[in-house]
Amino acid sequence: MGTPLSPQHVIARKRDGLELDRAEIEAFARGATDGSWADYQLSALLMAVFLKGMGARETADLTEAMMRSGTVADLSSIRAPKADKHSTGGVGDKVSIHLAPMVAACGVAVPMISGRGLGHTGGTVDKLGSIPGFRVGLSLAEFRAQLEKIGVALIGQTSEIVPADRKLYALRDVTATVESIPLICASILSKKLAEGIDVLVLDVKFGRGALMREKAAARELAVALTSVARSMGKPARAVMTAMDEPLGNAVGNALEVAESVECLRGSGPADVMEVTYALGGQMLLLAGAAGDAAAARAQLERSVSSGAALGKFRQMVAAQGGDPRVADDPSVLPASALKAPVPSPSSGWVASADALGVALAALRLGAGRARAEDGIDPAVGVSGLAKVGQRVVEGQPLCFVHANDRERLADAQAMLARAIVVGPSPVGRDPLVGETIG
Amino acid sequence: MGTPLSPQHVIARKRDGLELDRAEIEAFARGATDGSWADYQLSALLMAVFLKGMGARETADLTEAMMRSGTVADLSSIRAPKADKHSTGGVGDKVSIHLAPMVAACGVAVPMISGRGLGHTGGTVDKLGSIPGFRVGLSLAEFRAQLEKIGVALIGQTSEIVPADRKLYALRDVTATVESIPLICASILSKKLAEGIDVLVLDVKFGRGALMREKAAARELAVALTSVARSMGKPARAVMTAMDEPLGNAVGNALEVAESVECLRGSGPADVMEVTYALGGQMLLLAGAAGDAAAARAQLERSVSSGAALGKFRQMVAAQGGDPRVADDPSVLPASALKAPVPSPSSGWVASADALGVALAALRLGAGRARAEDGIDPAVGVSGLAKVGQRVVEGQPLCFVHANDRERLADAQAMLARAIVVGPSPVGRDPLVGETIG
Repeated sequence: MGTPLSPQHVIARKRDGLELDRAEIEAFARGATDGSWADYQLSALLMAVFLKGMGARETADLTEAMMRSGTVADLSSIRAPKADKHSTGGVGDKVSIHLAPMVAACGVAVPMISGRGLGHTGGTVDKLGSIPGFRVGLSLAEFRAQLEKIGVALIGQTSEIVPADRKLYALRDVTATVESIPLICASILSKKLAEGIDVLVLDVKFGRGALMREKAAARELAVALTSVARSMGKPARAVMTAMDEPLGNAVGNALEVAESVECLRGSGPADVMEVTYALGGQMLLLAGAAGDAAAARAQLERSVSSGAALGKFRQMVAAQGGDPRVADDPSVLPASALKAPVPSPSSGWVASADALGVALAALRLGAGRARAEDGIDPAVGVSGLAKVGQRVVEGQPLCFVHANDRERLADAQAMLARAIVVGPSPVGRDPLVGETIG
Repeated sequence: MGTPLSPQHVIARKRDGLELDRAEIEAFARGATDGSWADYQLSALLMAVFLKGMGARETADLTEAMMRSGTVADLSSIRAPKADKHSTGGVGDKVSIHLAPMVAACGVAVPMISGRGLGHTGGTVDKLGSIPGFRVGLSLAEFRAQLEKIGVALIGQTSEIVPADRKLYALRDVTATVESIPLICASILSKKLAEGIDVLVLDVKFGRGALMREKAAARELAVALTSVARSMGKPARAVMTAMDEPLGNAVGNALEVAESVECLRGSGPADVMEVTYALGGQMLLLAGAAGDAAAARAQLERSVSSGAALGKFRQMVAAQGGDPRVADDPSVLPASALKAPVPSPSSGWVASADALGVALAALRLGAGRARAEDGIDPAVGVSGLAKVGQRVVEGQPLCFVHANDRERLADAQAMLARAIVVGPSPVGRDPLVGETIG
C-alpha cells in the first residue's frame, strides 16, 4: 500500500478507521498545496475522512497544517486586542458588514478575511464589492497598515493565506464531502487563525437555510470549532442561531449593504440587531474590552447611537477605495432596472418563510453563484421581506423582487410566492439566538 | 448536492449508504469513459463504494455498465462452446499459458484476454511477451479470426474492451481502493464478459501471495463473482486455491513459459498440474464438453499425453507471430547473464516459502513492475524453488536466481534466503485446491 507518508498509505490508514499521526496529516496538507498529491488522492482521503471521521487531535493537527500551508499574518504591531467573527453562513446574513465597524468603534481591532459566497447567495466579500470602488483584494501589507490606522479591515481571501484550503474546498464542493465536521472545522479555523487574531466568535447556524440543518449537528460543529481553537491557544466561543427564515428584510448584495447601513444608523431590523448584539457582545467579552454581557451590549449600542460605528464604517469604505457616501446615501449603490412586489395571496399571518427557497429565488435573479466561475449581479435580490409572525392583508407585498431581466423576475416571484407561506392564525416564533458554546 | 445523475449527487447517495440505481451507475461508468466525471469525483465515489459497499444488483449493474463502456466481442461465428478462466492472481501462476491450449485441444474455444501484471510479478501477457516475436496486441478482428481457425487466442487488453476499467483500475491503484469486492467483481467480470464467452471459471486465491489474504474474504469474492456472472446469464464457477507459497518451481516471465511448456509435455510440477486439472475440469464441465469430473480430467490428461495440447500451443504461438520452437526447445527464450543458487542454511524440511517474499525478490530482479510505466526484464527470476514439506540438506540449493545485475542478484539471494524457511522436522502441507463455489 505504498511507503509511509505516501498518499496510498495515508489514505488506506484513514479508510481503515485509524488515527492519522501529525506527519501523515502534514503530508496531506502539503500534498494539497504543492501538488505532490493528485486531486484524486486528495478526494479519496476527503471521502475517507467524511465517512470515518477525525478525532480532536487530528482535527487540530489538520487545522494547524493547513494554516501553515501559507502565510500566517503577523499583527503583533497592533496593540489593540484582535477579534474576529465567522458565520457558518445563512441567507441574508450581512452581520459582518456592520458588526466589524461596531466592534472596532469599541476599541477592539477586527482583522476580517471573508470568503466569496459558495452558497446560493453572495458572501460578505461579494456584498462589499457592490459598493462602488470598494477593493476587497488588499495585500496582507495593506491589510495590516489599514488595521494599524483605523482598527478594521474587511477583505477577501488572498492567495497567501491557507492555499491548502483553496484546493481542498474546491474539491469538497464537487465530491460531496462538504458536510464533515472535522473538514469544516479545519477549513474555517485554519483561515481565521492565519489572520493573526487573538480571539474568535463563531455564529453557528442551524435550520433550513444553514449548512447544518439539524441543531444537534450544528451544536457538534460548535463544540468542535471552539475546542479545537482553544487547543491551539485561541479563546473562542460559538453562538447558535436559527436560520429557518432569512435574516433581516433584504437578500442580495447591494440590498444587504443598504440594510447594514440601516443597522449602523440605528434602524436595523430587530432580528439582525439581536444576532449582531449577541455576537458583538461575545467579541468584546473574549477580547477583554467589556466586563460583562450588559456592559458589552451597552458599549455596542453606544457605538451606534453616537455615530461612532457609522463613522468607522465610512472610514473603512474610504480606506478601501470605496465611495464613503454609501454610509449616508444608499442611492450610490447599484440598483436594478425592475422592481415588483410579491403580493400576499390572503389575509393572515406569515407562517413560514423558507430561507432556502428565498436563496434559490435570489440565485435565479443572479445574486449568487451556481458555479464558482459564475459572475454575480450586485443590484438584484429581494427586499422588504415579511417576517414570520407578521400580520398581512391580502394583496399586501410579502416582499419586493429586484431584477434586471423580466423572465428571471417572473421566476423569482413564483419561487418567492411558494417560499413565503401565509396562514390563517398567528404563529409564535422560535428563539433566534440560542445557546452559547465554549 | 447537484442535480440527479450529477457526480455530486451520485457520490452523496453512496456516501450516505443508499443503493444506487441503474441510471446512476451508468452515469458513473460513462463518466469514467468519456471524462464527464473528473478523476477526483471518480475516486471519491470509489472510496464511498469501498466503505459503504454495493449490493448484488448494484454490482451487476456496474459490471454491465462497465462492459458496455467499450466493444463487446461478438464471437457468435465460433460454433464451439467458449470458456475462459480468470485467476485473481498469485505468485508463479502461469496456468493460463498451458491451460488455454489444453482446453482448446479438448474442443472448447478459449478466447482469453489477460491483463499486464500490476502485482509484483508479470502477468500472463508479460510472460507470453518473453517468447521471441509473440504478439499479444492483436486487434479484436485478428483475435476472432484466430479463434475461428485454431480455437485459442491469448492476448492483452485492447483499448476497445472496457475502457471504463482502464481508468478506474489505474485510479484504484493509487487511491487505496483496490480491495473492494464489488469493485474487484465489476472489474474482472466486465472484461471477461466483454470477450464474448459462454462460461467462466475463476481461480480465487487466498493466502500471503494473494490479493485476498483471508480465506473468508476470498470466499466472499468467489460467491460475488459467480452470482453476479450468473445474474448476467453466464454460468460461472470458482475454485478456491491456496497461495501461501509460489505455484510451481519458477517465478519470472521466460522461466514460467518454460515451466508451462513442461506442463504441456507431461512433466509439470505436481502443484501446478493439480490446479490446472481442477480449473480445466470445471471449464469442460461448464461448457458441456464433459459429463462429469472424472471424464473431464481424463480428457485433459489425454490432451497432454497425446501431444494435442502441446500442438495447440505451438499453433497458437505461430499464429501470434512467436517462435514455435519454444514448444520444443526452451533455449529460444531469453536467458539471464547470471545464475546463482540460494543454498539451504541447514538440513531439514522446507517449512514455508513466503510467496510475497519470493515475489518481492523477483520484482527486485526486474521481473515485475513497481509502477505501471516500468519495463520488465523477461529473462530474470527464480527457478528450481524447493516446495514446502520437501527434504533438503545443508548447502543444497533452495532455488536458483536468474539475474542480469550483480547487485540485484545479491539482493534477491538475501531476500529469498529470508523467504524460504527450513525447519528441523517434516511439516504437512495444507490442501492446495479447496472448495468449488457456484
